[in-house]
Amino acid sequence: MFPTQKRRIFMLYSHLAPESLLKRTGVDHPSQNLVKASLSSHQRLSQHQLRLYSSDETSSTSGDIIQELKNHVSGFLPMSLVEKFIKGYRALPPYKTHIAPESTPRAQFLIRLAQEYPFSTEETKLVTSEKGTERNPDNVSISDLYYLFEEIFSKNVTYPRSPNPLPEEPDPLQFLLHLRQDVLLITGDLKKGDRTNGGVALEVSLRSLNLLDASLKSLFSRYFDSSFLKLNRLTMMSPSIIFQRIINKERVHPFRGEGWLDIQQRIGPARRLFYFESECSSLPLAFVQVALFPQIATNMNQILGDTPSLRSEKEATCAIFYSISAAEPGLRGIELGNPLIKQSASQLRRELPNLRQFYTLSPIPGFLSWLEKNLKAKPSGTLTNQECASIEKYFPENKASCTVAEIVKKARATSRSAECDEKSILKQIRQSPHLEDLWRPIFMRLCAQYLLTEKRENYQGFCAMDPVTNFHVRNGARVAQLNWCGDMSTERVRQSFGIMVNYQYEFDHIDARNKAYMENGQVDVDETRMRKWITE
Amino acid sequence: MFPTQKRRIFMLYSHLAPESLLKRTGVDHPSQNLVKASLSSHQRLSQHQLRLYSSDETSSTSGDIIQELKNHVSGFLPMSLVEKFIKGYRALPPYKTHIAPESTPRAQFLIRLAQEYPFSTEETKLVTSEKGTERNPDNVSISDLYYLFEEIFSKNVTYPRSPNPLPEEPDPLQFLLHLRQDVLLITGDLKKGDRTNGGVALEVSLRSLNLLDASLKSLFSRYFDSSFLKLNRLTMMSPSIIFQRIINKERVHPFRGEGWLDIQQRIGPARRLFYFESECSSLPLAFVQVALFPQIATNMNQILGDTPSLRSEKEATCAIFYSISAAEPGLRGIELGNPLIKQSASQLRRELPNLRQFYTLSPIPGFLSWLEKNLKAKPSGTLTNQECASIEKYFPENKASCTVAEIVKKARATSRSAECDEKSILKQIRQSPHLEDLWRPIFMRLCAQYLLTEKRENYQGFCAMDPVTNFHVRNGARVAQLNWCGDMSTERVRQSFGIMVNYQYEFDHIDARNKAYMENGQVDVDETRMRKWITE
Repeated sequence: MFPTQKRRIFMLYSHLAPESLLKRTGVDHPSQNLVKASLSSHQRLSQHQLRLYSSDETSSTSGDIIQELKNHVSGFLPMSLVEKFIKGYRALPPYKTHIAPESTPRAQFLIRLAQEYPFSTEETKLVTSEKGTERNPDNVSISDLYYLFEEIFSKNVTYPRSPNPLPEEPDPLQFLLHLRQDVLLITGDLKKGDRTNGGVALEVSLRSLNLLDASLKSLFSRYFDSSFLKLNRLTMMSPSIIFQRIINKERVHPFRGEGWLDIQQRIGPARRLFYFESECSSLPLAFVQVALFPQIATNMNQILGDTPSLRSEKEATCAIFYSISAAEPGLRGIELGNPLIKQSASQLRRELPNLRQFYTLSPIPGFLSWLEKNLKAKPSGTLTNQECASIEKYFPENKASCTVAEIVKKARATSRSAECDEKSILKQIRQSPHLEDLWRPIFMRLCAQYLLTEKRENYQGFCAMDPVTNFHVRNGARVAQLNWCGDMSTERVRQSFGIMVNYQYEFDHIDARNKAYMENGQVDVDETRMRKWITE
Repeated sequence: MFPTQKRRIFMLYSHLAPESLLKRTGVDHPSQNLVKASLSSHQRLSQHQLRLYSSDETSSTSGDIIQELKNHVSGFLPMSLVEKFIKGYRALPPYKTHIAPESTPRAQFLIRLAQEYPFSTEETKLVTSEKGTERNPDNVSISDLYYLFEEIFSKNVTYPRSPNPLPEEPDPLQFLLHLRQDVLLITGDLKKGDRTNGGVALEVSLRSLNLLDASLKSLFSRYFDSSFLKLNRLTMMSPSIIFQRIINKERVHPFRGEGWLDIQQRIGPARRLFYFESECSSLPLAFVQVALFPQIATNMNQILGDTPSLRSEKEATCAIFYSISAAEPGLRGIELGNPLIKQSASQLRRELPNLRQFYTLSPIPGFLSWLEKNLKAKPSGTLTNQECASIEKYFPENKASCTVAEIVKKARATSRSAECDEKSILKQIRQSPHLEDLWRPIFMRLCAQYLLTEKRENYQGFCAMDPVTNFHVRNGARVAQLNWCGDMSTERVRQSFGIMVNYQYEFDHIDARNKAYMENGQVDVDETRMRKWITE
């Protein structure tokens, strides 16, 4: 056994999940008769549908594999069984959103695994005992799904580091992440499903999958603890598979074409791309893109354009984090963005001692959708009297709120093909100084209101309405500056009229700001820069 | 000093260039008065044109740098000077083919370096003393250009292996290869130049550059001796910079688009891409692409198409080498293709013991151009009487040789845009069974004649007319099979009417075949497969 492996196993049994994490999972234990009802319904499933193919021509049903797994209640599973499990699962048709998820082979297999396999974890045991439900003691055995995972990971320690892995060799870590991705997709579809027919079985399936999900999430939160993650800088010396995955996963500012030419600008002079790699695998788990400037950047053209932002990196005083992405949907709920930003900032400060300021240049994905709803819900309360007056001076034929609603509707309908269209609503406004003078202060004021005061309910209580705001402010950043036409791409016009926001990370104030937000929902703000957009 | 470094230096002084290499260089020593004439012409050059910019704002003229180099006649150069040299040279405008090459800054610098710097090597000394010319003893000092190169390489031992090299750090090995590439380009252009004006100075420049080229080539032939090269398999774990260079350098079957999607097929199941890496750098120097099949492949669609050639790689009995490329024009004349094929074949045999047969699937770049010339030079001698008769039966309005010349002209004019054109000459022929029955045996017979009997003169005496034939047959391969419509790409239709050839490497017969070819120009052939295309 490798030292790192030992350390992980030690972690596994000594590291209890934080209470907040437990509360978040919200899983419940299915009562015994529900399990039985479900099992009998599953026994009627066609054996053919559940057949698992293993590429070495031995094949077995999922039932066989689950039975084999169950035979190893305490102890390490033989590697051959783990491989059979992975190959078998991969041979099932990939899960795609389905109106009746429970009829797809992967969902059937996962539901059966979730119900039959004694996978309960320390964490889920805590949850269920807190809720006072009873468990069959046979089911609450020491989690040997962990042994399965442990086997999968122990293989992984030697595998992806080898210089020339054969392309056909499975990556077990990736497998587990994709397994959870399937669980999350199936759970989501089941929730949407019709519960009038077979509602009880559906309920059982859902609860079992939630329990499996919680088990995987708890495992991941231990394996992908940031102290086990390595921060890497992407360079042309990095493995191509890392490039490929990052290109495929970048959603904030997607790469053009195949992406390989574009990405070279983003790792070139005065640019950085950092990613988290797990010590168990060379998969990138999350990545952040940074541009270095002599001052704050307010526009995506400054960052993705061809004009160099600096003559020499030594002159950089300001780092702009302009894209933060998770690379694996199976990591949902595992906090990686926060340590990624902080470790990248530390690394940059060590490398470039003149760096003093750390900002983001971020989208505001929910602004127009909120504004649209708000205008419908309270047409007269959305705009100030003064705003109404100045709009109606220009557009006397309608009520001001209707005029705004019309513009928002047009912006939200912007399509990719309209990007070059000179008639797109934002271009129309920008081409007329009068129109821009009219709309700029109104949209900026509304946007500031949306970012700073609008809240939604989540598991923690209340949080900022905008998910990106919630992410950065929870990390301890503050809202620093709003930028009119900060990103003229189709997507950004649809989301926020092209307005972008800089969040600022002041590392001396991070803890205080995080506390103020978590306790009182307070979003801190740079008042000098934002004063003109804040009402009252 | 690193152990590998020591080994290289030992090699440097103990390994004499083979005599054949010396003969090839064909350089001559410029006589003393020519040097003087040239120098005085150079002294009239504008200092501004020769200025070298170093990025840290100190700048000096090329004369200063050459003087500084000369001050270190025996001993290692300070690293700062080497860096200045590299940066200065790179700051000069890149050399592009020019009608008056001697007026471009890089040519001026290289000619001056070649003339003023005492760069003569053991090898060039041998050449010049063989020819009985005299050298100024000051100029024939122990080559300290080697010290310069040694410095450049010694830096290289630590640099490109570091996990995260800064993008702005120069790669000294690449620099030297590009320097020679410039020398070769400039030499080529100078040769084409008008020698009536300033013919003497031109002659001097040419001879000096030839000497510099011979010095660089001799150095490279020692550094890139195949015993120092490492054979690597390209996988998705390989550094992206290797992918990028290979994508840019593949000329035989170019990648589509940005190339990164295409290349994944070529390193996927039943495919291999091997490349030579120098121990001084992680640059790919040459690379070969291989496809695994249960039998010989006769068509590029089998190789680059989406249909898998095998269910499992273990079933492979036949390896098809379908593309061999040098990655650096600066390596001209350094033998890399031969050891690359042989080492790749050994590695494949170790990995897949069922592999028995090794073929290429190769283009015939010179076939139609030879045929065109031949038809012009001896219209009646090119075709057999029987061929003439069958052609004239179909096309009675012209002489047979004119009809063939017309078809060849059309094929040679095939343009990229005509690839989809249903009227392209080859498509016309293939769509009519009668036409195909007429032309197929004629073109195949002519192609066999071209490959097997046509010769041209080179430095070794006579060799096969086709450069690809010469390459493989000199390596000890034989001509195994001709494939009608083996590659329907525009380039191949223009070169050889789409005909492709398999060369076969039988490792038991390689030495004998190489000897028969080198001594008698004999091109060995698989008579069973080729009999029908061979006349008499």
